[in-house]
Amino acid sequence: MTASDIEALLDRVRRGEVDPAAASAQILAALRAAPFEDLGFARVDTHRELRQGFPEVILGLGKSPEQVAAIAGRIVARGQALLVTRADLQTYDAVRALVPEATYHGQARAITLVQGQIPPGRGTILVTCAGTSDLAVAEEAAITAEVMGNKVDRLYDVGVAGLHRLLAEQPRLQSARVIVVVAGMEGALPSVVAGLVTVPVIAVPTSIGYGASFGGVAALLGMLNSCANGVSVVNIDNGFGGGCMASIINHL
Amino acid sequence: MTASDIEALLDRVRRGEVDPAAASAQILAALRAAPFEDLGFARVDTHRELRQGFPEVILGLGKSPEQVAAIAGRIVARGQALLVTRADLQTYDAVRALVPEATYHGQARAITLVQGQIPPGRGTILVTCAGTSDLAVAEEAAITAEVMGNKVDRLYDVGVAGLHRLLAEQPRLQSARVIVVVAGMEGALPSVVAGLVTVPVIAVPTSIGYGASFGGVAALLGMLNSCANGVSVVNIDNGFGGGCMASIINHL
Amino acid sequence: MTASDIEALLDRVRRGEVDPAAASAQILAALRAAPFEDLGFARVDTHRELRQGFPEVILGLGKSPEQVAAIAGRIVARGQALLVTRADLQTYDAVRALVPEATYHGQARAITLVQGQIPPGRGTILVTCAGTSDLAVAEEAAITAEVMGNKVDRLYDVGVAGLHRLLAEQPRLQSARVIVVVAGMEGALPSVVAGLVTVPVIAVPTSIGYGASFGGVAALLGMLNSCANGVSVVNIDNGFGGGCMASIINHL
Amino acid sequence: MTASDIEALLDRVRRGEVDPAAASAQILAALRAAPFEDLGFARVDTHRELRQGFPEVILGLGKSPEQVAAIAGRIVARGQALLVTRADLQTYDAVRALVPEATYHGQARAITLVQGQIPPGRGTILVTCAGTSDLAVAEEAAITAEVMGNKVDRLYDVGVAGLHRLLAEQPRLQSARVIVVVAGMEGALPSVVAGLVTVPVIAVPTSIGYGASFGGVAALLGMLNSCANGVSVVNIDNGFGGGCMASIINHL
Amino acid sequence: MTASDIEALLDRVRRGEVDPAAASAQILAALRAAPFEDLGFARVDTHRELRQGFPEVILGLGKSPEQVAAIAGRIVARGQALLVTRADLQTYDAVRALVPEATYHGQARAITLVQGQIPPGRGTILVTCAGTSDLAVAEEAAITAEVMGNKVDRLYDVGVAGLHRLLAEQPRLQSARVIVVVAGMEGALPSVVAGLVTVPVIAVPTSIGYGASFGGVAALLGMLNSCANGVSVVNIDNGFGGGCMASIINHL
Amino acid sequence: MTASDIEALLDRVRRGEVDPAAASAQILAALRAAPFEDLGFARVDTHRELRQGFPEVILGLGKSPEQVAAIAGRIVARGQALLVTRADLQTYDAVRALVPEATYHGQARAITLVQGQIPPGRGTILVTCAGTSDLAVAEEAAITAEVMGNKVDRLYDVGVAGLHRLLAEQPRLQSARVIVVVAGMEGALPSVVAGLVTVPVIAVPTSIGYGASFGGVAALLGMLNSCANGVSVVNIDNGFGGGCMASIINHL
Amino acid sequence: MTASDIEALLDRVRRGEVDPAAASAQILAALRAAPFEDLGFARVDTHRELRQGFPEVILGLGKSPEQVAAIAGRIVARGQALLVTRADLQTYDAVRALVPEATYHGQARAITLVQGQIPPGRGTILVTCAGTSDLAVAEEAAITAEVMGNKVDRLYDVGVAGLHRLLAEQPRLQSARVIVVVAGMEGALPSVVAGLVTVPVIAVPTSIGYGASFGGVAALLGMLNSCANGVSVVNIDNGFGGGCMASIINHL
Amino acid sequence: MTASDIEALLDRVRRGEVDPAAASAQILAALRAAPFEDLGFARVDTHRELRQGFPEVILGLGKSPEQVAAIAGRIVARGQALLVTRADLQTYDAVRALVPEATYHGQARAITLVQGQIPPGRGTILVTCAGTSDLAVAEEAAITAEVMGNKVDRLYDVGVAGLHRLLAEQPRLQSARVIVVVAGMEGALPSVVAGLVTVPVIAVPTSIGYGASFGGVAALLGMLNSCANGVSVVNIDNGFGGGCMASIINHL
Repeated sequence: MTASDIEALLDRVRRGEVDPAAASAQILAALRAAPFEDLGFARVDTHRELRQGFPEVILGLGKSPEQVAAIAGRIVARGQALLVTRADLQTYDAVRALVPEATYHGQARAITLVQGQIPPGRGTILVTCAGTSDLAVAEEAAITAEVMGNKVDRLYDVGVAGLHRLLAEQPRLQSARVIVVVAGMEGALPSVVAGLVTVPVIAVPTSIGYGASFGGVAALLGMLNSCANGVSVVNIDNGFGGGCMASIINHL
Repeated sequence: MTASDIEALLDRVRRGEVDPAAASAQILAALRAAPFEDLGFARVDTHRELRQGFPEVILGLGKSPEQVAAIAGRIVARGQALLVTRADLQTYDAVRALVPEATYHGQARAITLVQGQIPPGRGTILVTCAGTSDLAVAEEAAITAEVMGNKVDRLYDVGVAGLHRLLAEQPRLQSARVIVVVAGMEGALPSVVAGLVTVPVIAVPTSIGYGASFGGVAALLGMLNSCANGVSVVNIDNGFGGGCMASIINHL
Repeated sequence: MTASDIEALLDRVRRGEVDPAAASAQILAALRAAPFEDLGFARVDTHRELRQGFPEVILGLGKSPEQVAAIAGRIVARGQALLVTRADLQTYDAVRALVPEATYHGQARAITLVQGQIPPGRGTILVTCAGTSDLAVAEEAAITAEVMGNKVDRLYDVGVAGLHRLLAEQPRLQSARVIVVVAGMEGALPSVVAGLVTVPVIAVPTSIGYGASFGGVAALLGMLNSCANGVSVVNIDNGFGGGCMASIINHL
Repeated sequence: MTASDIEALLDRVRRGEVDPAAASAQILAALRAAPFEDLGFARVDTHRELRQGFPEVILGLGKSPEQVAAIAGRIVARGQALLVTRADLQTYDAVRALVPEATYHGQARAITLVQGQIPPGRGTILVTCAGTSDLAVAEEAAITAEVMGNKVDRLYDVGVAGLHRLLAEQPRLQSARVIVVVAGMEGALPSVVAGLVTVPVIAVPTSIGYGASFGGVAALLGMLNSCANGVSVVNIDNGFGGGCMASIINHL
Repeated sequence: MTASDIEALLDRVRRGEVDPAAASAQILAALRAAPFEDLGFARVDTHRELRQGFPEVILGLGKSPEQVAAIAGRIVARGQALLVTRADLQTYDAVRALVPEATYHGQARAITLVQGQIPPGRGTILVTCAGTSDLAVAEEAAITAEVMGNKVDRLYDVGVAGLHRLLAEQPRLQSARVIVVVAGMEGALPSVVAGLVTVPVIAVPTSIGYGASFGGVAALLGMLNSCANGVSVVNIDNGFGGGCMASIINHL
Repeated sequence: MTASDIEALLDRVRRGEVDPAAASAQILAALRAAPFEDLGFARVDTHRELRQGFPEVILGLGKSPEQVAAIAGRIVARGQALLVTRADLQTYDAVRALVPEATYHGQARAITLVQGQIPPGRGTILVTCAGTSDLAVAEEAAITAEVMGNKVDRLYDVGVAGLHRLLAEQPRLQSARVIVVVAGMEGALPSVVAGLVTVPVIAVPTSIGYGASFGGVAALLGMLNSCANGVSVVNIDNGFGGGCMASIINHL
Repeated sequence: MTASDIEALLDRVRRGEVDPAAASAQILAALRAAPFEDLGFARVDTHRELRQGFPEVILGLGKSPEQVAAIAGRIVARGQALLVTRADLQTYDAVRALVPEATYHGQARAITLVQGQIPPGRGTILVTCAGTSDLAVAEEAAITAEVMGNKVDRLYDVGVAGLHRLLAEQPRLQSARVIVVVAGMEGALPSVVAGLVTVPVIAVPTSIGYGASFGGVAALLGMLNSCANGVSVVNIDNGFGGGCMASIINHL
Repeated sequence: MTASDIEALLDRVRRGEVDPAAASAQILAALRAAPFEDLGFARVDTHRELRQGFPEVILGLGKSPEQVAAIAGRIVARGQALLVTRADLQTYDAVRALVPEATYHGQARAITLVQGQIPPGRGTILVTCAGTSDLAVAEEAAITAEVMGNKVDRLYDVGVAGLHRLLAEQPRLQSARVIVVVAGMEGALPSVVAGLVTVPVIAVPTSIGYGASFGGVAALLGMLNSCANGVSVVNIDNGFGGGCMASIINHL
């Protein structure tokens, strides 16, 4: 209920078309109206698309397949696009029972259904990763960016120990509008990439490694301490967060 | 053995009704009498209800089903209420063999049997959580508070990224006497809730999250560093501790 | 602006006494009216006393003496009570220049001025600490509780390595309505105290210790893992938080 | 040396105007020519403005005043803009001896000199912080963004424990193109802000706090685990990194 | 080869009974003779009983059943006592095939065979633990002490939250010559016990707990920071180390 | 008040020599009589010598010189021996004003006064350290052991990187009854020493080192993970704890 | 394309044998030519043998058997030697299907195929480990060194708690050109070994241990803090890294 | 005393020139003779030059100027070379009083005196660092390597965010026999360097950085997790260790 809504209502009050008490109740109700749908175990945020440009995304981790499916069903029923991350096949089966058209992306562990009007991003998002083992996280970022309306270019296995593999692809780096860099182990790739480009770099550490990688902490710290400008970081293994941030920037 | 008990005994000694040696033994025995029952592997604290208002609660974690069942059997045999936390179905089966009337709460992983006289709490305890994945811990808190004689109001999935879901429920926040706030990931919900109310907020971090959530450490630290007044914290995933603390406050 | 305010305004609109556009502006303005005072570097929360029962408390740490004094001046000017924590003498000098009646508590490092009407707490808050070195934090808790209208009983240097010192004071433990337990090093005192009483125990770890105390982490972890019921924890050295939580509970 | 440069040179070789050995040496030299200036203790990256849109920025931390001044002198001598971060007054004195027009920003601990042509950013960058103690870091972000050609709006002391202070400023949040959120302690502000807007949020944790804030770790973890979309994070106290990332996005 | 051995040999050299070169070789060989048996994957320390009073103990963790059995076979073949810790049933099967008389202690996860002459300890070792869940570690300590020739008294489930359970057993505490205290969670029991006795207390933290117990770190830190005198600590879950240290002290 | 005391008293009651009410009061008083002296900021544990064989030791850290002096004065006034650890010269000045005969040990940072009857230890305590930088902690251990009545042998700077320095002193190792091993950096010395002897080894990690020594954590972890038998550990830099534990063992 | 290549090409340009545009294209192409093979999910670094003396080694961890097999197939097809680390039997099966001559080393979890010309190392590499449980890592180091052309001497189970086992083998220590020391738990062996020799020691911590070994952190820290000269360290459990570093040194 | 010494002695025994008892005493004494000089607070390892090729190096950290000077005096008196690390000017003054020819290197914080015969290293050691702030550590490495007889090439400020600065110097990288890479912040430089060369890379993390660099932990972890071959790591800020390891390799 905007200022003009209120003014219009008040005009009708003045003209006697609406009773003051009723109008008062209406204003209060509007202020109270919750833009969400209560499923008991979840409050689906039905206004998120209005507020943030993309409907609520479901993090599969820690929810039962039935819970995921129920939330997914409500989102799809409103004609909105669907994205479930960290979904296993069992969850996909539960979702598919309610949303038969949903697609499963095995490597990215994501369920998607594109519908409604997703505004397109302006440039290309480059998703790059350091090693073959980082593919799951990189794909989660890439699928997220694609579902959110972006053109995505994938450049994989270009870790810094064989620098020529990256330097050979400088034109692709230069033509991106945002770059998502996924890396585990020492997490040095974002620093090197950011030193070569003028666009924002979203760094995604992965839990790939062993021993003193401490489940991705080494990569995370490396990225937070990057000596290059224009690098910001999301959580370990958070491919979704990287792709989503890139999409938000690419839609500016 | 109180002061008047001792004086009465001494009177009988003076009157020659009791032998000094026997009286001395009686006093020493009283001082020695252990208010617990020794099962070998466990010493059931049979006076805890006297001391703390609720009988001993059994933490299922790290005990065998047989050990849990034996302790549960002793508690129930004395007519006291039963609460077992962190109990799986196998433990429930062992308990049910000895205590057929016991109930199992699947989501909360708790076994309960209400008997004896539990004094009622004075107001309502609101149990709220940030996300669907926090439900197991929130339910443990809620069941604990209910078994301990409190009226419980549940408000779930009101995380801070969609603030309107919480703001829409301010009347329920305002009408609680104590609030238990359960949250994983960044654990920001207790700060926001405590800023809106005048009652104590017990914050329960959960291990929900991944990567740099470090099994609930991020949420725990967030809650310990809360800039809001009236927040205190219990261990990660300690729904029982949150519900119990709330109940103790609610019984003041 | 409550429902009746709005209805009254609308009545005047209907009677032609108020122009709809003006009324609309008034409603919007009311909704927008910020209950705080903007000093540029700080937004003094002038409604906190209404919302939480005690005016905004100033954490001295990280603020310049001038900033503290300016905020303190605004609070006192409104007739509200003043509490500044983590204040050194230099800060006190700056505050005293603006608020000559303010008192400095050296051991607690706190500045106070009691004015206005602070509702009294219902019972006694016992503040206890494990060792002489914990006194600064314990005093911060005690002063906080006193300023907030509570009767405070102090019981110091009763660490668990000489248990008889604590056991000798059981009557004082039993007569408290809330207990704040302050301890550094291994932080075992809250568990022992909570096993002896039926009232809530607020545990405050201190940074007292060396080596593997890790600046209070050992005590913090000990308290979070307490095997006793009815213990919740605040941040390391957060005497204010402990005293404030105790006061909120004692005002229920 | 581009493709057309090489072709032109070869044409001259073919016409006999240039000796093959000389041309070969010229090509090799071009490939070798380092786009930096070697001061012995530092290699000033003179091409960074070409590569990244802004000249090299000097991190004052860990460099002697003389080293900072020498590097600053070389940058200014080339007509480029100057930004020194983490600079104390002693460093400013050394710089001013070589670059008299340089300005010192006390709260931000930064030295600046605006010269040359800095392309303007497209929208407004909002820099917001949770508490008065976060001002130094917030100012470093704001000064950085301003020097890099952006319009900056400052919104300070709007922490989540008094949510109305933030909600009252939603229009300013809505009108920003990028938002930098600076917060210490529990670091919850970025999650709340990101839930209210559709633009990218750069989160900057600060070391403000004590005890279990662990020098900013609590805030850092809170931000990395944000449940809101569109949040990425830079290092603790890295106001420069936050302002710079925001500027890069705002120049897209 | 002692001084008298050397002198005797040299006497024979002087008498011409032994050739100087041969005697030289003999001395060098003696210095070189390795007091161990080489199995390729292991060097069994056959002189440990001489050096340390008890034969080599086998840590089962990280060794295959076949490796454990082979080492155990060599020890038993020399007539020495056998102790294998952290052994599962599969390992026991492999050992039993070679050493049929070996005994398996399920709760302690230990394999033992008492043979040879183990000198008896002088007093009683009391093994006490805080909770039922600590029993596996406590039993490992008790079995270790028994195999090493000590009389062991077991006092279990006397955690500090119900202090009367411990205080009721002071005579047993007083009559021990060494006390092993096993505790998880906050690990407060050793401080309380050491405050009541004059004998050495060996504290064994366990990994029992969850959340902020961090696999026994909370208990370990609590014990290292004990404010009581006469407490020293071994590794988390190291029941063997606690029992062994107690035995060494009890054999003084 | 022992059993025979009670029986004697009751005999007198029976003979009419004592009034029952008076006797009752006497028994209750005895049970209540606190064996400590209350200084307000400290409760001096006057019965510790009875309970633990040595009077209360004052940890200087975190106490003001005046507080230390006041406690020291009370201890000396009762004719008991004095030991203050972590005392600087300012504290010594305050103590000396009250206790002129007290001695200051500069390297050990300890204040001592030997008086009363300290029972002598049975054998020699060897205090050994790895490097010259560990001397302060080693001396704290040695002074502690000496004040507590033990003969102490000092063997310093025998770190494992020059093993011959240690091996050359095997006779001194062999002739000790208890060994305190003080080491920083990698903390390997206790493992090597314990492999050479049959007596208990108390390991004291020090904060000597830099970088990844993390203030003594590396040494602490090394000692806790010792693969040698008969090693237990006290807190980082806790020379007092090491010397005290050794003394308790040496007095068995 | 070296300087002489370029000069030769330019000579041909001058002689009119090559067109300037074509020559220009050829130079640019050479600079652009990527020395790797793109499999989509991996970019096989085909020039690594030229750059680093040994072809690319495949880390099996985190790659699917099919991915490993595909990369292995490409390497073998070029006639290069094959080394896959962290390979399970399933991965071996996939590799064997493509490379039937490949060998599996069970304890080292490595797949190898020796072909092509590996230049031999100059001296012997000694691989030594502290305990039987460290064998897997030690074997990975040994196999790596052997595949890379080195003579390897294995000396296992010589931990510092039984020092004579190591001292008995000093001749083997002395005759090595590089030593790889593998140890878990307290990780003290490298310090002791490095104190006895003049050659470089590569320390490999293992995750063997429990409790406060924290998955190898204790050993890692011990090695990083070694007080001996000539010790450098690789990641926890990185037998490959240790063997490879030793081989690079041995090929100097 | 070698085998031939013993045989010669025995020959004299056989010839009656030496008494058996005297010879026996001589042999035992030789075995006992400690190759160190005992200063009380330090045991100077006088045989280290024989064992390890360079005399004992003095770590200044944690030693008093007088202790350092005394040890330095003993080393120089034997005609050996002197290296003191982590020495401040006060320490230098104390050393100079005893050893007037000693030189102080301000940036490296080292004291040196070259005398005696240091065998020269075979190739050049390249010491490279990422930023100007790493110079102190890099210089410590360089001075160490020079004092130990090596030719050193310094290449400073070539961090990965401006990769061209490093790539421009590939010939210097290629011509080194060993490379020491010093870097703070994200510590990515060793990975990039090691990918370009075939010689061993010794990585030295520095404590340069702030916030999540955690005093060099980020750099340390980055280096331990390096995906490049031929990288091993020493302690944070351990320039000495890096230079020493490089020298040992360069002397092979």
